[in-house]
Amino acid sequence: MQRTIDYKNGKVIVIDQTRIPHELVELEMPDYESVADAIKTMKVRGAPAIGVAGALGIVVAARHSSASDPKSLYEELEQAGDTLKKTRPTAVNLFWGIDRMLDAAHAALKAESNVDDMKHALESLGKLMLQEDEDICRRIGSHGASLLPQNGDVLTHCNAGALACVGYGTALGVIRAAVEAGKRIHVYADETRPRLQGMKLTCFELVRDNIPVTVISDNMAGSFMRKGKIDCVVVGADRIAANGDVANKIGTYSVAVLAHHHGIPFYVAAPTSTIDLSLANGDDTPIEERSHEEVTHIDGHRIAPMGVEVVNPSFDVTPAAYVNAIITEKGIVYPPYKKNLR
Amino acid sequence: MQRTIDYKNGKVIVIDQTRIPHELVELEMPDYESVADAIKTMKVRGAPAIGVAGALGIVVAARHSSASDPKSLYEELEQAGDTLKKTRPTAVNLFWGIDRMLDAAHAALKAESNVDDMKHALESLGKLMLQEDEDICRRIGSHGASLLPQNGDVLTHCNAGALACVGYGTALGVIRAAVEAGKRIHVYADETRPRLQGMKLTCFELVRDNIPVTVISDNMAGSFMRKGKIDCVVVGADRIAANGDVANKIGTYSVAVLAHHHGIPFYVAAPTSTIDLSLANGDDTPIEERSHEEVTHIDGHRIAPMGVEVVNPSFDVTPAAYVNAIITEKGIVYPPYKKNLR
Repeated sequence: MQRTIDYKNGKVIVIDQTRIPHELVELEMPDYESVADAIKTMKVRGAPAIGVAGALGIVVAARHSSASDPKSLYEELEQAGDTLKKTRPTAVNLFWGIDRMLDAAHAALKAESNVDDMKHALESLGKLMLQEDEDICRRIGSHGASLLPQNGDVLTHCNAGALACVGYGTALGVIRAAVEAGKRIHVYADETRPRLQGMKLTCFELVRDNIPVTVISDNMAGSFMRKGKIDCVVVGADRIAANGDVANKIGTYSVAVLAHHHGIPFYVAAPTSTIDLSLANGDDTPIEERSHEEVTHIDGHRIAPMGVEVVNPSFDVTPAAYVNAIITEKGIVYPPYKKNLR
Repeated sequence: MQRTIDYKNGKVIVIDQTRIPHELVELEMPDYESVADAIKTMKVRGAPAIGVAGALGIVVAARHSSASDPKSLYEELEQAGDTLKKTRPTAVNLFWGIDRMLDAAHAALKAESNVDDMKHALESLGKLMLQEDEDICRRIGSHGASLLPQNGDVLTHCNAGALACVGYGTALGVIRAAVEAGKRIHVYADETRPRLQGMKLTCFELVRDNIPVTVISDNMAGSFMRKGKIDCVVVGADRIAANGDVANKIGTYSVAVLAHHHGIPFYVAAPTSTIDLSLANGDDTPIEERSHEEVTHIDGHRIAPMGVEVVNPSFDVTPAAYVNAIITEKGIVYPPYKKNLR
C-alpha cells in the first residue's frame, strides 16, 4: 500500500488529504516551507504523520542548505524547526519528530561531523522514522486486535488510519489487525465535523480495504450505543498526558462519555511518541482554534447565515477516567495510567 | 413577524425552509397534494408546523372538492388525510392536526350540515388552529422562561423555533420569552447534522431577533458542557410518550445523556398536541429513516466516498429519566411523568 508520507529523491512526498475521497493526488515538496504549509493546511494531518512530516521537513531543510560549516547548518535547522513547530499546536508528535531530528543534528555537531555527514545522518534517520512508524502501527494493531470482539461493531471517530500515519494506522491499524486475524468487524465511522475526516478519510480507507463501514453523523453515536449496536470504541490521540488524559479530535470527549454511560469499552491507540510525560494532565494541552469557515462552509459553500458567531476548537480532552486502555506499540496500558504510562 | 405557515385566499402559504438561510421564499399551495409534498420534502417541517400544515391540507382539499353531498365530501377528506398522514411518520402533531380536522368534518356530517357549511366550518377551524398555535407557543415561552438563568448560556438542538411552528417557537419560544423578560441569554446552536437545521434555521431566526447565538458542530456540545459553558438545554419534541420519553431530532439523546452526566438541566418544550398518551413508552415511536443522500451529500455535493454504507434515522428517543421538565402551554410538567402528563 502506498505510503501517506514518504521521502524520495530528496523530496517529501505526501498524499494530499484535502482532496480525498475525490482524488488521490501526491504532492512533492522540495523544501521545509512547503512541508510547513502542507501541515498547516492539513494536506498532511494525523498526529503520527505530522510527526514524521516535521522530521522530514528538517531533512529537506538540511539537504538544500548552502551552509558551509556544521554550526551554521545546525542553526539553519533550528530555524526551520521553529517554523515547522508553529504550524499546529496540539499533536505532540510534531514536536517529537522535529526535536528528534534536531537532537541528531546536534549529536553530529558534537561529534564534529562535516556538513555532508550531518546531512547524510539526517536523511538516514528520516528513512528510519518512516519505517519505524509503519512497524509501530503494525505492533499497535497486533496488541490491540485482542481487545476487539470476535464478531462485532466498532465505532471510531475522525481518522486515525493509514492516512494519519505513514501507513496502516493506529485505531484503524487495530481494526485492520483484528480483521487480518479473522475477526468479523463492522465499523461505524463518525463523520467528524467540521472537516469530516471520518466520512472522507476513514470511509475511503476502509472501503478500499473491503472492511465493512457505515458512516454516521456524529450525533447518532449515542442513540446507536443505546440500541446495543456498538461493542467498543477505538480512537487515536494527538497528545496523552502523564495521567492518561487524552487530547484528540473534537467530539472524542462526547463519544467517551457516551461509551462510559453505556458500559462500552473506549480504547485509545497511539504510539508512545504521542505521550507527553511533561504534561501532568490533559487540560494543559494547547488546543488549536481553527478557521471559522471550517464550520460555516462545507467544500467551499457557505451554509451558515451571516451574523452568527462561531467557535472551532479542533480538539478536546478526554479525562483518563473514561479511557479503558491505551494501546501502544509496546503493549496495552491499563489504569492507573499515572503509574503505568511511565 | 411573518408566519411560517398561513392560510390566505384559499391557499396554504409556507416559508420554504429548504432555502433558508440563503433566501426567504413563500410557497403558495392550492391543493392538498402540494401540501403533502411540502411536508415530505421538509419545505415545511417542525412538529407543530406540520400539525397545522396537515390540518390546512384538509381545508384546501375541502375547498377545491366538487363533491355535491356531505358524505362524498367527507370521504374525499378521509382520502386526503390518508395521503397527508403518509408523508412523515414520527411527529404525532401531524396526525393530531389532520384528525382534528376530520373530526370536525365528521361532526358537521352528523349535524347534517350542507357541503358549503362543512367547508366553511373547516376553514374557520384552520384559521383558529393557526392562531391557537401562536398562542400556545407564547404560553410555552412564558412558562418556560422561568427555568432559564438570569444570565447564561442555553444549548439547543435542531430547530424548535418560529420556523417549526406558526410563529415564535417552542424551545426558541422559551428563549425569546426569557429575553423579553430581561434575561441575558446567549444560545449555543448545535448545527444538527445531517440537514443542519440548527445552523441554517435556528441561527437564522436568532440572528434576525438579535439574540446572541454561536453555532457549534454537534460533537462540541459535550466538551463545552465539561468546561462549564452551558447552563441548561432546551429542545423541542416530535412525540412524547405517556411515560415522558421524548422522540426528537437525531442527536437529542446524546445531548440529554451528556447534560445528565454534567448535572445540566435538560428541558423539552412542546405543545400538548405532541403528547401521545396512547404510546406507553417512547421506544414504540415510529422512527423515520430518511434518504442516505442527506448524510453523504451537503447542499447537493457528494462528500462521502462511493461504496460506504449509510444509515439515517431522523429521530431518536430520549428516556424520561434524562428529562428534567416538559414545558407545555398548560404549565411545566415534572417527573413522575407517567402520572403528571395525564
